[in-house]
Amino acid sequence: MVQKFTAEFFGTFWLVLGGCGSALLSAAFPGVGIGLLGVALAFGLTVLTIAYSLGRVSGAHLNPAVSIGLFVGGRMPAKDLLPYIIAQVLGGIVAAAVLYVIVTGNGSSIGTFAANGYAEHSPGGYDMKAAFLCEAVMTFMFLIVILGATDSRNSNGGFAGLAIGLTLTLIHLISIPVTNTSVNPARSISQAVFVGGWAVEQLWLFILAPIVGAALAGIVYKALWK
Amino acid sequence: MVQKFTAEFFGTFWLVLGGCGSALLSAAFPGVGIGLLGVALAFGLTVLTIAYSLGRVSGAHLNPAVSIGLFVGGRMPAKDLLPYIIAQVLGGIVAAAVLYVIVTGNGSSIGTFAANGYAEHSPGGYDMKAAFLCEAVMTFMFLIVILGATDSRNSNGGFAGLAIGLTLTLIHLISIPVTNTSVNPARSISQAVFVGGWAVEQLWLFILAPIVGAALAGIVYKALWK
Amino acid sequence: MVQKFTAEFFGTFWLVLGGCGSALLSAAFPGVGIGLLGVALAFGLTVLTIAYSLGRVSGAHLNPAVSIGLFVGGRMPAKDLLPYIIAQVLGGIVAAAVLYVIVTGNGSSIGTFAANGYAEHSPGGYDMKAAFLCEAVMTFMFLIVILGATDSRNSNGGFAGLAIGLTLTLIHLISIPVTNTSVNPARSISQAVFVGGWAVEQLWLFILAPIVGAALAGIVYKALWK
Amino acid sequence: MVQKFTAEFFGTFWLVLGGCGSALLSAAFPGVGIGLLGVALAFGLTVLTIAYSLGRVSGAHLNPAVSIGLFVGGRMPAKDLLPYIIAQVLGGIVAAAVLYVIVTGNGSSIGTFAANGYAEHSPGGYDMKAAFLCEAVMTFMFLIVILGATDSRNSNGGFAGLAIGLTLTLIHLISIPVTNTSVNPARSISQAVFVGGWAVEQLWLFILAPIVGAALAGIVYKALWK
Repeated sequence: MVQKFTAEFFGTFWLVLGGCGSALLSAAFPGVGIGLLGVALAFGLTVLTIAYSLGRVSGAHLNPAVSIGLFVGGRMPAKDLLPYIIAQVLGGIVAAAVLYVIVTGNGSSIGTFAANGYAEHSPGGYDMKAAFLCEAVMTFMFLIVILGATDSRNSNGGFAGLAIGLTLTLIHLISIPVTNTSVNPARSISQAVFVGGWAVEQLWLFILAPIVGAALAGIVYKALWK
Repeated sequence: MVQKFTAEFFGTFWLVLGGCGSALLSAAFPGVGIGLLGVALAFGLTVLTIAYSLGRVSGAHLNPAVSIGLFVGGRMPAKDLLPYIIAQVLGGIVAAAVLYVIVTGNGSSIGTFAANGYAEHSPGGYDMKAAFLCEAVMTFMFLIVILGATDSRNSNGGFAGLAIGLTLTLIHLISIPVTNTSVNPARSISQAVFVGGWAVEQLWLFILAPIVGAALAGIVYKALWK
Repeated sequence: MVQKFTAEFFGTFWLVLGGCGSALLSAAFPGVGIGLLGVALAFGLTVLTIAYSLGRVSGAHLNPAVSIGLFVGGRMPAKDLLPYIIAQVLGGIVAAAVLYVIVTGNGSSIGTFAANGYAEHSPGGYDMKAAFLCEAVMTFMFLIVILGATDSRNSNGGFAGLAIGLTLTLIHLISIPVTNTSVNPARSISQAVFVGGWAVEQLWLFILAPIVGAALAGIVYKALWK
Repeated sequence: MVQKFTAEFFGTFWLVLGGCGSALLSAAFPGVGIGLLGVALAFGLTVLTIAYSLGRVSGAHLNPAVSIGLFVGGRMPAKDLLPYIIAQVLGGIVAAAVLYVIVTGNGSSIGTFAANGYAEHSPGGYDMKAAFLCEAVMTFMFLIVILGATDSRNSNGGFAGLAIGLTLTLIHLISIPVTNTSVNPARSISQAVFVGGWAVEQLWLFILAPIVGAALAGIVYKALWK
């Protein structure tokens, strides 16, 4: 479990450092910024790169909703659930702390960091209903891909890391304007801890909606394709 | 068939949600929008991610023209054709309904949604002849890649999902300005149902041209490389 | 040879249609254009997608310089060289004809099409010396990757199509501003035929420099790593 | 060793030519420039393409910090370290010389080339502390991925080249605004040699921080997952 715990810790550290870091440092860099496309790619690549390096150790969940969806889908023992989630949340927060030092290293404040939000805190002004639906559906499809790609009957299982990482890219390509895209409570918590206020108040949605979507996927996958 | 039907349903749901969704929500987001490049990537990734997850179940066609091209190429039994196409069209329409709720969640109207069009409804003003040629040729080459990548004599068959998904990305990189890119009747129908009017009137081209291109590819592939 | 000839014909058709087509139709589309990054991706994906579909049939050269480099490197019989090159040049010209119909379908002229050029016809105004060096070095490294990735001692040979396609993307990311990037005489000829004038006069460089670079790579690879 | 030396030489030549070349020639090309996203992709693709071609020969380190991290992690014999580093530094400098000829081929000066810098020479004005932390952490995670992806117990080892190359892309997506991204002393030296002055004075950070991060990763990987 120490091996798994530390793999999830460093993996989620990388997810928040790379995904939120690219959003904060590079997305809107004048003239040559990477935009939402670059941020979407960065989030996906954090998962892809950890899947093919530390995936062997812990399965590279890097996300409490993923761990819960896999548990509901019958792919993860109950006893691992809590340590995985603790490691993920801690890894995310340490990454946010590193980002805090770097981002403020040119005299900037962190502003709203890369926090997730809805209604007046949605990048594109989308309301709570749209935000909840979007987060739940995106996490649902994320888990459908994960459960299918890692199904032991899948003869192209080596490609799972590629497919799963690029699903996270795809999810961000669609939904950053709606909620800044969470689908990952650990990622949302890591930013809210530093932003406080509204980011903490809205955190419930970015914990609840991804978990609802993930759990539903676990049920649907077992019912339909198992 | 329930397994296959639901796999095609959820797969095409993802194709329309991801491809059309990224176009509607993120393509022109102020300052950091993902542009046509991001939309092209999103469409391709929907296919890639489903190919490596539910491809085992149904083959991940997600497109009536693909199913017809595979049937003509001798890769799909006639009895599966109708259920596949029904599942694809239904999955696309349900995705469009979800997109309707999200897109209007900030007070916007759906406008022309992500409907396909030619002449005055072509993004770049391309006429009917150019649009038909473009859709037919793009779908022709899409099926040539699909038939070749999934040929049982292909020793790198594991890469088929990657090659096929990225072919759809490539097709969008070329042709969004011409027709908003269909090559997929289910994708076109899903948007036209909500837009009505001209989008329904022009729908014939986005059903006919992809099917013509796909069927021709089935014939050519069998004639030349089988 | 009919199988190989037609595979090279359709493959190079796809390379010119996708690469030059994305440049002409989508690169500078107002507000959401794919830019040089999208064009670079498109060129690479034409090779990647053909490699994993028709690569089994002909090896997916799609480029006279590649065929010559493989011949010099001892990987291709002399008797195949001429038919391969003829198929490639023909496929490119037919693709240019299709592009002619589409591009002019909104009343535009073809302008300079996607022709390659140097000095006053270089996109960034680079002189003949820089253009020749750039084309030769890019094709040299293209062939080094091809020869290495398809070396029979390479244990990850399945990834060759990915590596080779993405090398063409990389080459375009670097060198479009210098010469509009050729590294492929068939691609250059296909555009010059329709543009005439200066494009034909400068064609010698885009035939000579890629062939020099490719042949040198064949010699170096054999000398160093064989 | 001649085989390995020349593979590292040409590989690092390609890394600097492609990564720094795309930054200098294409990043800010008017209207259709590839931006930092294109540069990030280019750097990653240099590693990916060499990994699948010359990786068989030398392991495709292309970076003194990588070689040192692998040595500390117990994956590389001490006797190879010096020749690898010499080949890498030489390859980088020759690439910079080629870039010098091309870049100045339209009458431009090289300006600050693609040199790395901090404080007033950081693209986004980040101070020395942020720069050092960023370079060390990025190289640390780079080596964690490399050590994990090439671990002999990893059953998806064929994907190592993909994961490692895309990690370099990810690192650039995050950190170009901070230091212009080094994580590679050979890349930094190659540019500083031509720029002189401040670029040479600040070179210590781009040698020290990557090596500290890489060595730490070697220690951590052995301690946690071996």
